[in-house]
Amino acid sequence: MNKVNHIWIITLFPELFIPFFQHGIGASAFRGERGRQFKINLIQLRDFSKSNYKGVDDTPYGGGPGMVIKADVLESALINGVVIPGDYNENNIKNELEVICPGPRGIKWDNLVSRKFAENYWGENSEKDLVFICGRYEGIDERFIEMYVDQQFSLGDFILTGGELAVMSILDSSIRFIDGSLGNQNGVDNESFEDHLLEHPQYTRPNQFHGLKVPDILLSGNHLKIKNYQKDEKIRLTKKHRPDLLKLFKDIENGENS
Amino acid sequence: MNKVNHIWIITLFPELFIPFFQHGIGASAFRGERGRQFKINLIQLRDFSKSNYKGVDDTPYGGGPGMVIKADVLESALINGVVIPGDYNENNIKNELEVICPGPRGIKWDNLVSRKFAENYWGENSEKDLVFICGRYEGIDERFIEMYVDQQFSLGDFILTGGELAVMSILDSSIRFIDGSLGNQNGVDNESFEDHLLEHPQYTRPNQFHGLKVPDILLSGNHLKIKNYQKDEKIRLTKKHRPDLLKLFKDIENGENS
Repeated sequence: MNKVNHIWIITLFPELFIPFFQHGIGASAFRGERGRQFKINLIQLRDFSKSNYKGVDDTPYGGGPGMVIKADVLESALINGVVIPGDYNENNIKNELEVICPGPRGIKWDNLVSRKFAENYWGENSEKDLVFICGRYEGIDERFIEMYVDQQFSLGDFILTGGELAVMSILDSSIRFIDGSLGNQNGVDNESFEDHLLEHPQYTRPNQFHGLKVPDILLSGNHLKIKNYQKDEKIRLTKKHRPDLLKLFKDIENGENS
Repeated sequence: MNKVNHIWIITLFPELFIPFFQHGIGASAFRGERGRQFKINLIQLRDFSKSNYKGVDDTPYGGGPGMVIKADVLESALINGVVIPGDYNENNIKNELEVICPGPRGIKWDNLVSRKFAENYWGENSEKDLVFICGRYEGIDERFIEMYVDQQFSLGDFILTGGELAVMSILDSSIRFIDGSLGNQNGVDNESFEDHLLEHPQYTRPNQFHGLKVPDILLSGNHLKIKNYQKDEKIRLTKKHRPDLLKLFKDIENGENS
């Protein structure tokens, strides 16, 4: 069975996604060139406005700066825009779609959340298709979130002018966990965060660069020594830059030894 | 004095940045439509390859999966690509440019870091121009980082297939702090994280949405009551979703009262 993974993205700026799905190794996976089948659908929210001038927002109740995206326009995009002919309607939209909206109150996106996300939604047994809602301006009407949004994720404690970059980051970081998506030569196991350590420094030719030499041990050909050296380097860098992560790493090592 | 803020971006995928600088309110600020002058320069790293097939990477010393971007190609892009005619050369590149590379060992990007970043590099008194380096594959040769990179920032504990989305997120989140960049109707003061609280829920027309009514108090016209209600809502949401932030908020309130 070759499951197709449907992804809908509701946004005021579908243009932002075009090169994202065209260039780079993540994009080639989403284009179906790495084994898993995807169908990406960009939905222009403005197309579902009922006003003459295609407005999608209005001033916030209670006053305050900025504009708020209207619940009814978002709902119309979700019900009328997210369509596999004959497959979705108002009744089953809740059961077969997972509606995701990035935002500051969401679950903090990290390597583990990203891995689970890929397993849950892009695995062979996943039953749900994904809809991403990209907010803009001061945000979206709370009642749309209440009625339709299943999950919120937060990239970090900062604000973007829209949800588009967050959605791309979610897609890009999680696609890496699909087998083969990074090509044969790449893998995620050696990357930062996989064992609560930062990655060791990397070197390639030339051996000499302005008097800076590649560490001799990496040229020794002794795989065991190299592996130990690289692990020591990972621990050194993590201790220097992320002592909080190092603690998690040590807890795991101790747990495994006990 | 109308200072021009120069930004260079060295990347294998300049195409990814094109719509980012074309669409949305952050983009209009970078195009100089919001008062501050910017000059954005996209540099294709491949143009600085010395090999016949325009290669920029090579296998890592010590073995392992993936490819590493070469220090000498990055250096050439920096020295020969980042140019205001007559202004930069090998001698002053360190004094007048701030070279920034996103990556997992960097300073965690957040609202405060973002605000300081805008003040430091886009303020009236900033003396440095910015160069962003976008990594790809297994990373970039450590010796380039050692010699040329001034600062690293990390969006969070997850891995992207390249630095481009991180650079866009850094630009997009920090442009918000330049006065007027969000237009007259928007402001950053009311947003999440500004006072260590999440933003209160937002509502706009219609008043009724599937039986869900806008809270009465927001229709009362009593600005003091509305303000207090919204603050209570901020605290409620922060307590629910981000108790760690709420502690910072309370520490500040207690500090101010004492």
